[in-house]
Amino acid sequence: MRCGASLRGYTLAYETYGKLNASRSNAILVFHAMTGSQHAAGFNPDVPGLDGRWTEEMRVGWWEDFIGPGKALDTRKYFVICANYLGGCYGSTGPVSRRGRGRWGADFPVIRVADIVDSQIRLLDHLRIKVLHAAIGPSIGGYLCLSLATRHPDRVKIVIPMAGGPETTVLQRLMNFEQITAIELDPAFRDGSYDPKSPPRDGLAAARRIAHKTFVSLEDLHDRARGEVSHQGAPPFGWYEMNHPVESYLLHQGQKFVSRFDANTYLRILDAWQWFDLLQEAGVEDFENLFARCRGQRFLVFSIDSDASFPPSEQGSLVKMLEEADIPVTWITVHSGKGHDSFLLEPSLFTPHIRQILG
Amino acid sequence: MRCGASLRGYTLAYETYGKLNASRSNAILVFHAMTGSQHAAGFNPDVPGLDGRWTEEMRVGWWEDFIGPGKALDTRKYFVICANYLGGCYGSTGPVSRRGRGRWGADFPVIRVADIVDSQIRLLDHLRIKVLHAAIGPSIGGYLCLSLATRHPDRVKIVIPMAGGPETTVLQRLMNFEQITAIELDPAFRDGSYDPKSPPRDGLAAARRIAHKTFVSLEDLHDRARGEVSHQGAPPFGWYEMNHPVESYLLHQGQKFVSRFDANTYLRILDAWQWFDLLQEAGVEDFENLFARCRGQRFLVFSIDSDASFPPSEQGSLVKMLEEADIPVTWITVHSGKGHDSFLLEPSLFTPHIRQILG
Repeated sequence: MRCGASLRGYTLAYETYGKLNASRSNAILVFHAMTGSQHAAGFNPDVPGLDGRWTEEMRVGWWEDFIGPGKALDTRKYFVICANYLGGCYGSTGPVSRRGRGRWGADFPVIRVADIVDSQIRLLDHLRIKVLHAAIGPSIGGYLCLSLATRHPDRVKIVIPMAGGPETTVLQRLMNFEQITAIELDPAFRDGSYDPKSPPRDGLAAARRIAHKTFVSLEDLHDRARGEVSHQGAPPFGWYEMNHPVESYLLHQGQKFVSRFDANTYLRILDAWQWFDLLQEAGVEDFENLFARCRGQRFLVFSIDSDASFPPSEQGSLVKMLEEADIPVTWITVHSGKGHDSFLLEPSLFTPHIRQILG
Repeated sequence: MRCGASLRGYTLAYETYGKLNASRSNAILVFHAMTGSQHAAGFNPDVPGLDGRWTEEMRVGWWEDFIGPGKALDTRKYFVICANYLGGCYGSTGPVSRRGRGRWGADFPVIRVADIVDSQIRLLDHLRIKVLHAAIGPSIGGYLCLSLATRHPDRVKIVIPMAGGPETTVLQRLMNFEQITAIELDPAFRDGSYDPKSPPRDGLAAARRIAHKTFVSLEDLHDRARGEVSHQGAPPFGWYEMNHPVESYLLHQGQKFVSRFDANTYLRILDAWQWFDLLQEAGVEDFENLFARCRGQRFLVFSIDSDASFPPSEQGSLVKMLEEADIPVTWITVHSGKGHDSFLLEPSLFTPHIRQILG
């Protein structure tokens, strides 16, 4: 691993959809977003050994509207793969995995974006897939696409980062830092060596609230709240009385998240985000030389105009770098009232261009 | 008070600069921002009874560059008044004030923007000032200006809200909520009944970090950090290793703040911000009828183009409301690389228009 540690072996939890063709040339690798899972499409009632984290909201694939017969990733034509990140908490080896009589917990090695990608390159080797038809990923899944495309340029033909960017922005960095400290300041965190039965729920929920507000359109949130009765009285904790439905909405989002995610895992992924550095990962001095490696690939970059988490300016700077390196790139900005989450909710905005470039 | 409670008496800590003229017509009331104090100009080595909160950074007035002979608020012509908010922690009656053998602490009544304004109306009565030449306030000081102008329209002639707005935005509301929960989740907070010697430092510092990032220009922060060596290793707490100077910068800001502010006070002011509602305070149905009360006043509204806390769109909506109510208003947007804090740092951007309207 990038940090110098080694794992003697590891498990990747993954799912596939469609059939690999005889020439093994129709595979598409999907990278999930930060807190997603391998379960991208269809219905999966349970994943064993997850201590209850496979909650009801996990059962329908997170990209069900994008993967299937006739959909953006058409399973009549393509073999689609999605794996839970190394370091994740949905079946891949990570902080919640067993180690001896206990669990890895806080001792799990530090993860970098390149580690997650390289663990999946071995999965491709295992499946005997030499070249991917495409790699696609939303949000920080877009980082994984770029890490794959630049460090393993011979293994992918079409690269589709959606609402991502070439590097961590200052605002992302600060909001991630707020989340990290929110978890670490929860006394139940115990420097990461918490009992799985009494995890730092409050800190993790606070972290999720900080993140969640950037995934939605605030205007949309405000409009939706207009019809609701204000939640007054009954403070959830402490002294403050909530006075607006957006506060109870965020509170609910935080609580829902805690039931399906692990705090050490969340920290590992935030940490990988903070340290994400394409140049350093590739050992290259500048972006022009980095993307020069991608000659032979084609890029399709998506922006969402109301995205507060990965604003269009970020994809714009990626596109500029690709153009300067003479890589064929199409940049599409979709108009959405849903913010960053549009990549989950509005397949019709993305499907035509995905279908075109894949075909 | 708005919450139904009464205080038998209260203290306002205030300072004045310049001389009140014989007709008592040259007074200007300055409202400080959220965590400011009565000490707007000059040098004040100490305020007694503050348990060390009058730190070195408090000694020079926070608006020293705006108040004085020949400055925007010219003390050769005007009598300038600035009072610490009721509920504040720099000498006015608030959660840190004595009550019996102890302190008010968490039992201090809930404060509303109207309460702060009305407490200062009594100060004007005490000073026998019937009509203010002007009221001016940056940030949430702008809210206080509007509350004063609409509920006490006969007591002010010129109203100058700087980088404020007519109502709490969704983003402000959510970031305030993050801060409130950060403090409440600190076990040292003890529902507000903490010992003043062991306050919820970590929670208050976390809250300040969340706020502080919106006061500065992130671009500016990024540029300044470019030259600095990354702070690697030595995590301040817990597991995460900081990897960028902006993180240590924010950490420092949080720590510095904790030494000069009180958590219960901070919560009271955040709460007033969350519940700020000009219409409800005035008992009026809509903004047109509200601002119709301001006929006879003149408004000067300032925006800062890089303001992430109170973006120009907020002042724009205020200006539109004033125009619809036929109130004379001048709206000036200044270009700054410093974000919201420009109102503290760049007097030359604001002084000419302030001087013009006052004269």
